[in-house]
Amino acid sequence: MNVELISIGDELLIGQTINTNASWLGAELSHLGANILRSTSIPDDDKQIQKTLHKALFDADLVIITGGLGPTKDDITKQALADYFNDELAIDRPTLEHVQRFFSHRKLPFLDVNIQQAAVPKSCTILHNKLGTAPGMWFEDRGKVVISLPGVPYEMMEIMREEGLPRIKKKWTIRSFYFKTGNLQGIGESYLADQIQDIEEELKREELSLAYLPSPGLIRLRIGSKNGQEQSERIDSYFAEIEKRFPKHFYGYGTETLAEKIGILLQKNKVTVGTIESCTAGKIAAEIGSVAGASAYFEGGIVSYSNRLKEQLVGVRPETIEKFGAVSEEVAKEMAIFGKQKLSVDYCIAVSGLAGPTGASEQKPIGTTWIAIATPDKISTQKFIFENNRQRNITRSVLSALNMLRLELEYS
Amino acid sequence: MNVELISIGDELLIGQTINTNASWLGAELSHLGANILRSTSIPDDDKQIQKTLHKALFDADLVIITGGLGPTKDDITKQALADYFNDELAIDRPTLEHVQRFFSHRKLPFLDVNIQQAAVPKSCTILHNKLGTAPGMWFEDRGKVVISLPGVPYEMMEIMREEGLPRIKKKWTIRSFYFKTGNLQGIGESYLADQIQDIEEELKREELSLAYLPSPGLIRLRIGSKNGQEQSERIDSYFAEIEKRFPKHFYGYGTETLAEKIGILLQKNKVTVGTIESCTAGKIAAEIGSVAGASAYFEGGIVSYSNRLKEQLVGVRPETIEKFGAVSEEVAKEMAIFGKQKLSVDYCIAVSGLAGPTGASEQKPIGTTWIAIATPDKISTQKFIFENNRQRNITRSVLSALNMLRLELEYS
Repeated sequence: MNVELISIGDELLIGQTINTNASWLGAELSHLGANILRSTSIPDDDKQIQKTLHKALFDADLVIITGGLGPTKDDITKQALADYFNDELAIDRPTLEHVQRFFSHRKLPFLDVNIQQAAVPKSCTILHNKLGTAPGMWFEDRGKVVISLPGVPYEMMEIMREEGLPRIKKKWTIRSFYFKTGNLQGIGESYLADQIQDIEEELKREELSLAYLPSPGLIRLRIGSKNGQEQSERIDSYFAEIEKRFPKHFYGYGTETLAEKIGILLQKNKVTVGTIESCTAGKIAAEIGSVAGASAYFEGGIVSYSNRLKEQLVGVRPETIEKFGAVSEEVAKEMAIFGKQKLSVDYCIAVSGLAGPTGASEQKPIGTTWIAIATPDKISTQKFIFENNRQRNITRSVLSALNMLRLELEYS
Repeated sequence: MNVELISIGDELLIGQTINTNASWLGAELSHLGANILRSTSIPDDDKQIQKTLHKALFDADLVIITGGLGPTKDDITKQALADYFNDELAIDRPTLEHVQRFFSHRKLPFLDVNIQQAAVPKSCTILHNKLGTAPGMWFEDRGKVVISLPGVPYEMMEIMREEGLPRIKKKWTIRSFYFKTGNLQGIGESYLADQIQDIEEELKREELSLAYLPSPGLIRLRIGSKNGQEQSERIDSYFAEIEKRFPKHFYGYGTETLAEKIGILLQKNKVTVGTIESCTAGKIAAEIGSVAGASAYFEGGIVSYSNRLKEQLVGVRPETIEKFGAVSEEVAKEMAIFGKQKLSVDYCIAVSGLAGPTGASEQKPIGTTWIAIATPDKISTQKFIFENNRQRNITRSVLSALNMLRLELEYS
């Protein structure tokens, strides 16, 4: 099954909104085995909408359109679709009742403009929008399908999960593109590529695809097969080999995050964790706390951004800061050791770094970061020199700290 | 000037990577006054690359291609472009020397595969990549321009800032699309639309465009004009009116974040801030600390995720938690008041909420959140009932807390 995605909205083209809908739809549909031919973003312009849809229907069996279904006047997708299918808009009763309930339940005033949310092209099948007021729409046209969805990501996702994907699965039986993704932290793309050149050659011989998906501090490695599950064991064995070569970097599979992985390990070991952060300013704690159920192992932490709080709240000795500077192995160590006591936890992560843009010296360039992990029986520290970019330094500090904790939990 | 964006990479289509490059380029180019016709993501496939480029060159004066220039075998854009322009690849000496320096400086081994990074189509002009090894390329073809850039966002951005955008400005003089964006926190889209219906009508009459850009907890409102700066004063006066109608929600313009706004206000008032967080787990602190120069006003905070730490570190009374529960006005209040003392700050933000998915009761559904702000002379609290989604509840709690602090700083 070939799919094209069309995203509508000036805000996507002028960069005011990042298109997360296309990536979510791409992920869901490739899981079903669909082949995503193309993803196009176009302005809120009815001619463009119709022209792009027309072209997409040449190559694709299914076209999914997101955006332009809101209550406001810049939303014109519905009318454009009605025109394309030589159809007209009419109020759909059940949708109108849903919209009315939606407003009364939230004690919000029901406005004239909201009635129009229930107007849809007569020929479409409604895909109910439980979380919002703009319904999804399913059109069939000479064996092909066009789905139109609201652009608000969580509404779009809910409609697809509840209504769109089940219908797609019923209509098409697809031979799937199978893939598995392995995740590595703290390793460079070209170094990794060099170290697995032999594996890459073998994959090629077996007609398996390999892709590198780098982001700051992380590389996701994807091995894929066009023959569905058939080669899944081969793919597993390649990943086993890669895992063996990079135990310090390889932390998991699929969409599992480092914070989720750590959560599993902490629960398995029945231990707790806390954080003492300076340059990352709470982002490590937030990452750990973003996992549902984190209260089972995450106690909390201290953001000791100022030196005063490093001393008063954590207990770092003023003379240590005086002598070595706040960004030093000695201070990171004291943050982790005293922090572990203060928080009464089994493991404590501490980070002190120079995120930038100011504060550098010759000995300590921007990006210099010390991370310390206090465990029940020892303390390990590591120095990193990241780069000259505040946000990236923070991100890489967070990921490196989480990976150091993972290594302590997995291998100590 | 008409522009088309082409993003290359299977990972974009199957949703393993979100396309942030297209939005950044869209924002930069529309600032220059370019008209972004379309943005297309396609797979790593040379036929698709050439076909899409060919089509784009029909309508556009400038085509910008990102991705597929890395050192690994799945990167094929360079060869596809050489073929399209009937050209061949050759090693560029200065680029090779840069790549070699790049590796020796980082004490990384220089590999055979890295030499290929310096191979480029002979007819292109090199756009130097200071931060990486894959150079950008500038092709001219019958008055039109094609730029090819690496897909790694920060390398792509640096090349454009240093080389691409200056060249574009030199080649084209453009009558610009002028727009201004105003940002509101904590208001619903359709309610806002209803309340500014009259303004919307007037804007239409003056041929100014209005767009709503909602994201969890925020709405960005964009008013635009196709006649460049000419109508900028009219746009300012419309925003002044909107600001007057929603002082509690309207917090700023353009790309300024709430955390940046707060930073400016705190510095102006010469006061400091700290945070005591439960469900947000450090994300408010991280948001405040993400602003460069935050150390001038941000002291730090405590992530009291467990009740034990709420008592031991912050000083919340056990009987208050016992009697009212951790998610209550009373506990949020004590977190803010005792936290302010513990941290010795002028303002203290405290949040306690039920992010979900578990822990709900009949009186306290998922999404129930109490936020308290302790100021130098008083304490204000507010209850929110967000929704049934952990990540969105955390995001909306962070934004609501920052906005409450902004109101205290601006209006008290």
